[in-house]
Amino acid sequence: MSAKVNDDLLTERRKCEFNVEELTNYLDGGAQATQNRRKLEDKVLSTKGLFDEVPEEYLSHKEKYENAVRKAVVYYKAMKEAEDPNQTEQERANATYRSLLHAAVFKDNSPFSLHLAMFIPAILGQADEEQKKYWMKRASKMEIIGTYAQTELGHGTFIRGLETTATYDPKTEEFVLHSPTLTAYKWWPGSLAHTANYCVVMAHLYINGKSCGIQPFIVQFRDEETHQPLPGIKLGEIGAKLGFNTVNNGFLGFDQHRIPRNRMLMKNAQVLKDGTFKRSPNSKLTYGTMVYVRVVIVNGMANQLARAVTIAVRYSAVRRQSELKPDAGEPQILDYVTQQHKLFIGIASSHAFTLTAKWLTRMYQKVTADLEKGNLDELPELHAIACCLKAVTTTDTSVLVERSRTSCGGHGYMLSSNLPQIYGLVTAACTYEGENTVLMLQTARSLVKALEQAQSGKRLSPTMSYLSEKVSSRLKWDNSIDGIVKGFRRVAYGKVESAMRSMRKYVRSGLGPEDAWNMSSVQLVAASEYTSISEADIRQLQDTYEDLLGKIRPNAVGLVDAFDFRDQILNSTLGAYDGRVYERLMEEALKSPLNAEPVNQSFHKYLKPFMQGKL
Amino acid sequence: MSAKVNDDLLTERRKCEFNVEELTNYLDGGAQATQNRRKLEDKVLSTKGLFDEVPEEYLSHKEKYENAVRKAVVYYKAMKEAEDPNQTEQERANATYRSLLHAAVFKDNSPFSLHLAMFIPAILGQADEEQKKYWMKRASKMEIIGTYAQTELGHGTFIRGLETTATYDPKTEEFVLHSPTLTAYKWWPGSLAHTANYCVVMAHLYINGKSCGIQPFIVQFRDEETHQPLPGIKLGEIGAKLGFNTVNNGFLGFDQHRIPRNRMLMKNAQVLKDGTFKRSPNSKLTYGTMVYVRVVIVNGMANQLARAVTIAVRYSAVRRQSELKPDAGEPQILDYVTQQHKLFIGIASSHAFTLTAKWLTRMYQKVTADLEKGNLDELPELHAIACCLKAVTTTDTSVLVERSRTSCGGHGYMLSSNLPQIYGLVTAACTYEGENTVLMLQTARSLVKALEQAQSGKRLSPTMSYLSEKVSSRLKWDNSIDGIVKGFRRVAYGKVESAMRSMRKYVRSGLGPEDAWNMSSVQLVAASEYTSISEADIRQLQDTYEDLLGKIRPNAVGLVDAFDFRDQILNSTLGAYDGRVYERLMEEALKSPLNAEPVNQSFHKYLKPFMQGKL
Repeated sequence: MSAKVNDDLLTERRKCEFNVEELTNYLDGGAQATQNRRKLEDKVLSTKGLFDEVPEEYLSHKEKYENAVRKAVVYYKAMKEAEDPNQTEQERANATYRSLLHAAVFKDNSPFSLHLAMFIPAILGQADEEQKKYWMKRASKMEIIGTYAQTELGHGTFIRGLETTATYDPKTEEFVLHSPTLTAYKWWPGSLAHTANYCVVMAHLYINGKSCGIQPFIVQFRDEETHQPLPGIKLGEIGAKLGFNTVNNGFLGFDQHRIPRNRMLMKNAQVLKDGTFKRSPNSKLTYGTMVYVRVVIVNGMANQLARAVTIAVRYSAVRRQSELKPDAGEPQILDYVTQQHKLFIGIASSHAFTLTAKWLTRMYQKVTADLEKGNLDELPELHAIACCLKAVTTTDTSVLVERSRTSCGGHGYMLSSNLPQIYGLVTAACTYEGENTVLMLQTARSLVKALEQAQSGKRLSPTMSYLSEKVSSRLKWDNSIDGIVKGFRRVAYGKVESAMRSMRKYVRSGLGPEDAWNMSSVQLVAASEYTSISEADIRQLQDTYEDLLGKIRPNAVGLVDAFDFRDQILNSTLGAYDGRVYERLMEEALKSPLNAEPVNQSFHKYLKPFMQGKL
Repeated sequence: MSAKVNDDLLTERRKCEFNVEELTNYLDGGAQATQNRRKLEDKVLSTKGLFDEVPEEYLSHKEKYENAVRKAVVYYKAMKEAEDPNQTEQERANATYRSLLHAAVFKDNSPFSLHLAMFIPAILGQADEEQKKYWMKRASKMEIIGTYAQTELGHGTFIRGLETTATYDPKTEEFVLHSPTLTAYKWWPGSLAHTANYCVVMAHLYINGKSCGIQPFIVQFRDEETHQPLPGIKLGEIGAKLGFNTVNNGFLGFDQHRIPRNRMLMKNAQVLKDGTFKRSPNSKLTYGTMVYVRVVIVNGMANQLARAVTIAVRYSAVRRQSELKPDAGEPQILDYVTQQHKLFIGIASSHAFTLTAKWLTRMYQKVTADLEKGNLDELPELHAIACCLKAVTTTDTSVLVERSRTSCGGHGYMLSSNLPQIYGLVTAACTYEGENTVLMLQTARSLVKALEQAQSGKRLSPTMSYLSEKVSSRLKWDNSIDGIVKGFRRVAYGKVESAMRSMRKYVRSGLGPEDAWNMSSVQLVAASEYTSISEADIRQLQDTYEDLLGKIRPNAVGLVDAFDFRDQILNSTLGAYDGRVYERLMEEALKSPLNAEPVNQSFHKYLKPFMQGKL
């Protein structure tokens, strides 16, 4: 921020009508939290060896991984050293979370991320007290590096379809893990290929030939000294992907691999020495880890969208192009209403998702605390909401990040803008941890059930209660915020009701309920609009909308500045605080190894003989 | 296709209700054309050295480029040798085009593509007869490799804003090319960085201090023997991008670089020795190359969408997942109506775009033939249509390719599926050769103009004539194809009329026409719906839609098989004809260089000391 700031950005910041620092504090959770976060950033970002010499995008696939392991180690230690012992764990978590420091280090992601985000939470959620004590001691010090292996080559979201078997052998008191088919191979887990040496494996438990459902097992698969795969283990990486290439996603197959009985995580279901199976007291309890990860995802989407929108808005304030009026000079592209339309929805959504993520996190903390006391009442609602918000925020974020990227024209296509990489990260979230169409249909199921309950006079949970409100089917249009909220409720109600009506019609026509559900599922996922809005109403809304775009315009840069992302965290030629867009584009281009020599060897080897007709 | 075919795909092909080969012939332009294309494919695809040993995605940025140059040379020669001298040029072009052979060789694209798609067309369209003779002789033999440099770091679609200057010096009869600022650097042209040695440069011509508009110049910028950049030339590559990384996009700056007078392409405007400037007889003539490239793009979108949809539909026939009914086994995911909804729109659009591209190509050929005879009447309509179809097909293709990708779940995220790469190629087309929002607004301008003409009783061109039809504002809904077409026309008419009304309102309120245009531009680009469709109509449409999905279902695989893409052209683990999806995923994964060693060196270097607390 010391360099000269672009004049247009200076003007934007002068025009801003609100106190940016106040909004930053609000997003952080108070002025003290902002200070804590900035202190943490100062400390960590001054660590040596944390950044790339050659930008990652120029390395080979293998080099990218090796470089990421190097940085992951440096980063982990830097974070440990920066820990403030005077802060509570919650304060530390907030600062870490909001700072998005890992994004400064990994344009992609860390090969340790699964250890922290899945392995440890799985132990905390699924291990019994003795197991937890033993494994957490090793995992928290990173004596071992773990991951979480659920998805298989042939099965993802449909967990019951998993093919990996764990057969209990009471003679030796061991489980025998086995991959009976190619499609049974574990496929996708991050860190699995060459980084981790332990993992939690979800496998279908059989005792005396009887299915006992999908259960979690902790499995060592590499030697701790040599890192060689253990006997009975087939292991490798799954290959290059659209993103997450430094995360080291792997595959894992078992050939009758034996593990001791105490490696099944037994907080919920248990297998006794003699092979007696004790079912989990409550099936809802297995939701735990899944819900936690979805809460993390919703927070992540809010942050990634905020980054993308910050980059695009700042670039749009700097970029001047075309003409609005003859001889008036080229305007900032942010002055085009079409550009405002593209970006301001992104600004609004990034703030809305940030607040939603906070709300969901608080709800999660409350329900988890209740769980400790044995109160499971709100778990189903938390599950439904986390499931729905995961699907909605990942879908919307993907669209809005991509819109931010294309709103930057050709320069948004450059990897140095960081927008393609952010898209790679967020679009993956539409698929992992529950494919969005499946989750949307789960949400639809909850909604249909709730509507049926409402129609039979039952009381609904707070987040569903709008389905039992008496809404007149011909709502009079009202252009206030309250009116718009009512309009949305009417549309939501109409969609659910219409899909239900359609299902009932199919059932009357002789279809079974499952086929009727399938036939109506397009309506359940997306849907046409159910509102009695008129052309005149639309015109009025359009006017209001155009009016609002104009009100946001002077505050656009302030609204993204408030996210307070440092340049290293945005990691973008287009989005830096000072707006030196073109200088940065050129500086980054010059880092390409192809620019180290004026003539590439391929000229002498292929081009010259070819052009001279000698090849 | 010799290997065993997946059972589900066999069943799909048996169920198909139409003759697939007939549709293939229709798409090719007759049975003979299909045969020609297949013969060409046989010849070219049997060439040695045309394919990668290590999949491209594992190479470094530099290696990718070098490998692409190697293949480009082999491919160019293979295509030349495969030429059938008995075919007309048009037959050859058709076969080459439909075969999409370059996609078998380059998952990304060729470093020679700009030579063929832009440099040669620019010479043909802009050079005078003498220049054409000289340059085409060299270019067609590839004695020289060329590109086309228009876009600059600071200016893209707004051509008048280009900053590169060409100042005529009558004393030496030379033009002096200069880049006065950093933003004046040419930025983006493919092949420019290390491949080409000549290019057509668009620069702002000045004679005696007077502006003479943007003109084309042919410029040598590398020595033909040594390939070193010439004096006064600053050259390099622009760095890594979301796609097109083997295309070798470059930057180019001029420091008072002199070229002879005859290097300005003078088919249209001319500069005489003494500095006299002769304006182009008709400004429409400069449209030529631009329109040609947009026709190519529309064809390309049809093909790329067809590839993506072929991959996704075949995968959806092979993939089985979840349950529709208890204990009925896992259905093909193609049986889920939500999946049909995602993919069948893609199937329909890929066929519709293929036919649209053929229609546009014929229109282009007719207008070009008319031009030769001096008849320019239909040029503006061709320009408007090409402009609109470029924007519409690239926008829709991007959305539909991405939908195809996500419809394949996690496996669509693998680069071995080829879906991410196809997306990288098509989304770029939303920006290059005219940014889509700008083109949509140009289309809107044509529509508003046409509506005004219609309202003042003038006759409209055939493609606009629906704007002068008397449409009743309360169209009665009619669920036939004709009725749906009428419905769309009504909506289109309504959108244009409403945007115009909104503009007029802004003008009345005191805004200048440009500001009014800007304020209304969101409506002009996207828009709310203008139709009097009722809830009951929507329900009926929904029923028809669900019914149609069911009719397409048995023919889905046949409809994509008809595109007749060979496995090498699809280049996808998920889309091959035989449906061996999982086997291919594993085979491709094993090609990752990371899988060559069971333990990566980063374990010894970083992980082990870190895990043992020694780092």
